[in-house]
This record gives sequence, structure tokens and C-alpha cells, in this order.
Amino acid sequence: MTDSPFTPGATRNGVPEFTREEVGLANRNSGALLETLDCDITPTGTHYLLTHFDVPMLSAPDHVLEFAGAFDAPFALSMDEIMAQPQVTQPVTLECAGNGRAGMDPRPLSMPWMYEAVGTSEWTGTPLAPLIARAKPRDSVQDFAFIGADFGYDKGVAHAFGRSLTPQDVAELDVMLVWGMNGAPLLPQHGAPLRLIVPGWYGMASVKWLTKIEAMEHRYQGFQQVETYRFRTHADDPGQPVTRIHVRSLMKPPGVPDWFTRDRWLQAGRVTLSGRAWTGGGVPIERVEVLLNGDWHDAALTGRAGRYAWTGWQIDWTATPGLHELACRATDAEGNRQPLSAAQNLGGFANNSVHRVRVHVAESA
Amino acid sequence: MTDSPFTPGATRNGVPEFTREEVGLANRNSGALLETLDCDITPTGTHYLLTHFDVPMLSAPDHVLEFAGAFDAPFALSMDEIMAQPQVTQPVTLECAGNGRAGMDPRPLSMPWMYEAVGTSEWTGTPLAPLIARAKPRDSVQDFAFIGADFGYDKGVAHAFGRSLTPQDVAELDVMLVWGMNGAPLLPQHGAPLRLIVPGWYGMASVKWLTKIEAMEHRYQGFQQVETYRFRTHADDPGQPVTRIHVRSLMKPPGVPDWFTRDRWLQAGRVTLSGRAWTGGGVPIERVEVLLNGDWHDAALTGRAGRYAWTGWQIDWTATPGLHELACRATDAEGNRQPLSAAQNLGGFANNSVHRVRVHVAESA
Repeated sequence: MTDSPFTPGATRNGVPEFTREEVGLANRNSGALLETLDCDITPTGTHYLLTHFDVPMLSAPDHVLEFAGAFDAPFALSMDEIMAQPQVTQPVTLECAGNGRAGMDPRPLSMPWMYEAVGTSEWTGTPLAPLIARAKPRDSVQDFAFIGADFGYDKGVAHAFGRSLTPQDVAELDVMLVWGMNGAPLLPQHGAPLRLIVPGWYGMASVKWLTKIEAMEHRYQGFQQVETYRFRTHADDPGQPVTRIHVRSLMKPPGVPDWFTRDRWLQAGRVTLSGRAWTGGGVPIERVEVLLNGDWHDAALTGRAGRYAWTGWQIDWTATPGLHELACRATDAEGNRQPLSAAQNLGGFANNSVHRVRVHVAESA
Repeated sequence: MTDSPFTPGATRNGVPEFTREEVGLANRNSGALLETLDCDITPTGTHYLLTHFDVPMLSAPDHVLEFAGAFDAPFALSMDEIMAQPQVTQPVTLECAGNGRAGMDPRPLSMPWMYEAVGTSEWTGTPLAPLIARAKPRDSVQDFAFIGADFGYDKGVAHAFGRSLTPQDVAELDVMLVWGMNGAPLLPQHGAPLRLIVPGWYGMASVKWLTKIEAMEHRYQGFQQVETYRFRTHADDPGQPVTRIHVRSLMKPPGVPDWFTRDRWLQAGRVTLSGRAWTGGGVPIERVEVLLNGDWHDAALTGRAGRYAWTGWQIDWTATPGLHELACRATDAEGNRQPLSAAQNLGGFANNSVHRVRVHVAESA
């Protein structure tokens, strides 16, 4: 059995522990509660949150989305005008590209996510593509930049958070402009009054507090597009962009936890293990295997609520007394399977190595 | 100026950094977003969360609150029966007793809160005292134990989370049974369908997922009452119980942040600093001072939304170019004032030392 990168006492590159700044980020940002994996839709208020700068408290009545740059028919829309567009609601699983970073070696200094930066909400909004078409982008457009109202510094560079998509991305990705979440208005910390949702891509693409869409006749050079969120092998490597979510699964930890270690405790006997699996691009999950007593066993898939929503899985296990390390791994319909240990990249992105759970099983009562 | 215990690079008792288990807890539990300190009521979904074990997903229609033990007229109530009681809504500021623990030296191994474990919600419920009276507690009752549905291990001891209040506490503390939060049903992670709110005490007293109230003719000996949440000076010290919130204040960090350090950046010139201050027991805040250029200045108090809600404050500052460390400290009407550095106790409770914010001020544009 491969050692869990999260095993208590594990060291990492000679540095056993985490820095104060990482813990500051972990205080501020928040992960999923894994016990809510039974829910198709993550309960409101427990969806993971990663905010680069500060949450802007925007006034919906005053908010305007501007279509600017290389459009032949640029315009601006109020929230009332946006909400009068054709309305779509769909469940979409979002995951932070940094999820799993805390298990990488060396570990980049950033938000030290372990497993929890994922969640699924019912997003309500309108498709982006028809609004882009209405603004008549010139044939020469190479990128659409999506700019948020959140502003700050990273590595000394001041910028509003921004990301771009190519015309081909916009045509292919079912991108939405979103103002609702789980049947209620979008909450401030999730991007109110308006955000982008790019289904099937890591969360950084789903720009919050969206204020401007700029058509560009060159590639967008924003900090978060060019300097972060890239797979790099060394410091001078420009790298490849982080885009589609990699195949991944999580287990709802069985039994009850130990407060500090989060190790699990349960009685010997039959227990149904369950969890969720997901991948990028709307591709179905084909298989979930669970590591029980040293062997991988196929779990039953229990379906997904939508093309971009995670898939449920479950399997029965006869728990025998002793200490066990359970794990799960998913394979998608394109044949991508989770690795047993993290693949390396400088930014610590897309670590989709298997979820491991330590379980102490007592004799049956 | 006293060094901030949170200054980047600070070491603590020879151990420079944080353990993997602490970071695991910080991934799971979540703190306030300090930029929301402008809000009287913390936006739904951003109120701090500290969950000892797992969130139980309870069915409201099936939920029953049992009054048991040394009552002469014990009974049990469904949620419909509880919600038919006289209804009260009031804003209450809750704070985790471990808030500030990450700044203590030595630092106990537990959830490593820095400043953010605080929030204010509008809680809707019914007063507890009349229901206790209706169950006719015997004169010999010494403690009422409040037992939640959440269960797990701490230091090897299996227990449901439970806490107690004396008959005098119940008479004096305006304790509520709560089913609503910010005008909506209580969310699962905040204790749905029913929790206790003990205004003016640290959060551990406000038991979530409340299932039983047991009248006891002896003092309650539950793990969370006797083994944790006590001010201890050494390992064999039984200690004093943690009860009322200590006076504290926070500043809404001005300007814009650096992503990693959370240091702030702003332009030279006048800026209005603002924040919140609170203390325990419904006592008013009398004074908030802000450290500007090395001297303490009185801020203006802007009032509170209720007896148990935090108080707003603000002050103008003419920011001059350079690196500044701002700080704020509150004094309550009983004369309690925040200390400049943490008082020591083994559990790392109630560190109400002043909030410090590092600010880089640039020349005006």
C-alpha cells in the first residue's frame, strides 16, 4: 500500500510542517465537510470557497456587465437585463485547481488544500454564447477576457482577478452567466450579483463578481492566466494552462471521527461505503474502485444529477477488527484513472491522487 | 510596538510551523471573511464553523427534543411543537473559545484559529427557561446537560458532544432553543433542526443538533465540560471553566490584500478604518482604540443591533507612505480591556489579544 501523503507525521521535502501564511489562508478559505458527500447538492454555506483577494460587496441594482474591446456591437447590461435572458438551471461540480496541493512534494506555498476543495451547486443563469454573438466579436478575436471586481496583489503584481477563454472554448464549454445558487440569489462570497460558470473546468475559470467581458485581438496576458494556474516543470517553464478537471473521487468517511486526527472509528461488521466521483468536460465516470483489505473492488455507480455533476458510488465492506487504510479511485469514460500518488508540478495543481481514509475497527459489541 | 504573534516568519516555542493535523482542521473548519465586518449580520454561509465531529444530517419531521432525568414532569417535543412556542428573533455574536489559539505560545494542538472564528447571525427560536420550568426540575437539580446528535472520539474518549448549564445560568443567560438563522431555516452545519444559543458565552455552550436536555442531581461530567474548555495552568490543574466571551475587536483590513501574506496595500491619504467589537454577558462596549503611527486613538462607536450583538466602530486615518502595523483594542463597560499579547493557558482559549494588520502605504497617485 502506498503511503498516504496525508499520514500523520509525514514530512515533506525536509520541512515537516506548514507555514503561518498557509494556515492563515486555510483559516480564511473553506473546504467541504466530507460527511455531506451523501448530498447530490452541497448544502448551502458548505460549498468550498477560495477567494484570491477580498469579497467585493456589490450592489445588484447598480451592477453592469460591460462587453468591450473588439466587438462590432458592444453593449452593457444591467442585472435586470441579464436576468431577462433565457434561464437555465443545472448542477455543476466545481473544484479548486489547488485541491490536493498539501499532499505534493515539494509543496508550493499557497492555500494548503488537502481533499476538500470541491462542491456541487444548482446554478441558475443564462448561456454566455448568445450574448457574445449579439456583441458581434470580430473574426480577429483570439481571446475573451473575463474580469472580476476583486482586486489585489500577487507576487507584487496588482491586478483585478481575470481569466480568458478562446472563441472555441466559448462555443464548446456550455459557459453560463450565473445569478442564482440552490434556488436563491447568489451569495456575496460566491460572486454576487453575477459570476461565470465554466462547467467541467477547474474553479479558477469561473470568474466571480464579473464586471467586464473584453474581446481581444491577441491572447490575454492577465496575471492569473499567464503567471499562475499553469502546469510547470521548472521555474523558467512557461508551462501548459490548467483547464479541465482531472478525474477524481472522494469517500464519505465511515463511522465516527477522532476530533484531532480525523481518523475514523467503527464497529466490526458490514458497512456501506459511499462517495462521489467526477471528471472534466462533462465526461461520464465509468468506474470507481475501493481499496478494501489490500485489494481494489468495483463500487456500484448510483448516477449523476446532470452532465456536469458528480456521480455517486457505493460498496459494502465487511469491516474486521484492526487499523485499515481505505482508498477510492475513479476512471472516466476516456480511460483517465486517478494515480496512487501525486504527479509533480511547481504550482501544486490538479493533484488527483486517491483519497485515503484511516479507519480503526473495534470488535463488534 | 509589541510584535504580532502572527507576523510572517515568527516562530513559536522552537517549532516554526504547524502540523498536518492542524492544517486538516483548518481545511475543514472555516473562519469569517474579515472584509464582511462592514455587515451588522454576517452573510449566510460565511459565519464561522467549528464542528467537533461530523455534521449529522437530521430529519426535522422525525426530530424530538427529550427532557429527561430529574424532572417531575418530563416530556418530549417534536419540532412542530417547539416551533409553536413563543417566537423570538435576536442578533447574537458567537465566537469560538479557541479563536486566537494560533497566536499562543506554546500553541496547543487543536484547530489553529488566528482571528476569524467569530460571526453574528439573527437567530430565531424560543426562550429555554419556560420549557425547563414546564418540565418541573427537582429542587435538587445541579446541572442541565444539553446533548447533541454529533458523536466521536477525543483523546480516546467516545462521546456525543454535550455541555451543561446550572439552574442559575438558565435563569440569567437568555438561553434560546433555535430553529432559524437569518430569516431562513437553520442550515445543517449550524445545528439543524434545533440548537441551543447561549448569548454572551463562547460558542461551545451553544450545543448544535440538540436532542436531549437532562436534569442532573450532580454536576455533569461530560468530556467537553470537564476535560476541554477549561483554563488550566498545568497538566494536573482541573482549571476554571471557559464561559463568558472576553472583550475583543477586529478591524476590517483596509485597502487591498496580498494573496499570500494577506498584508494590505493602499494609497497615501485619508482612509476610514472600521470594524467590530464585542464582549460577553450582554455588557456594552465602552471604548475602541486604534493604534495609528504608534499612538492609540479613540474610535467612534456606531452602535449595536442588539444586546448580544457586536458594536461597530470607525476612525479616520491619514495614511503616510511606508509600512505600518495597525491594531485595535476594545474596552467594555466593566473595564475589561484587550491585552497586547496573549495570556497563557494550556488549552489555548480566549486569546483576546489585539488584532494587528500590516499595511503598505504607497505614495499617492
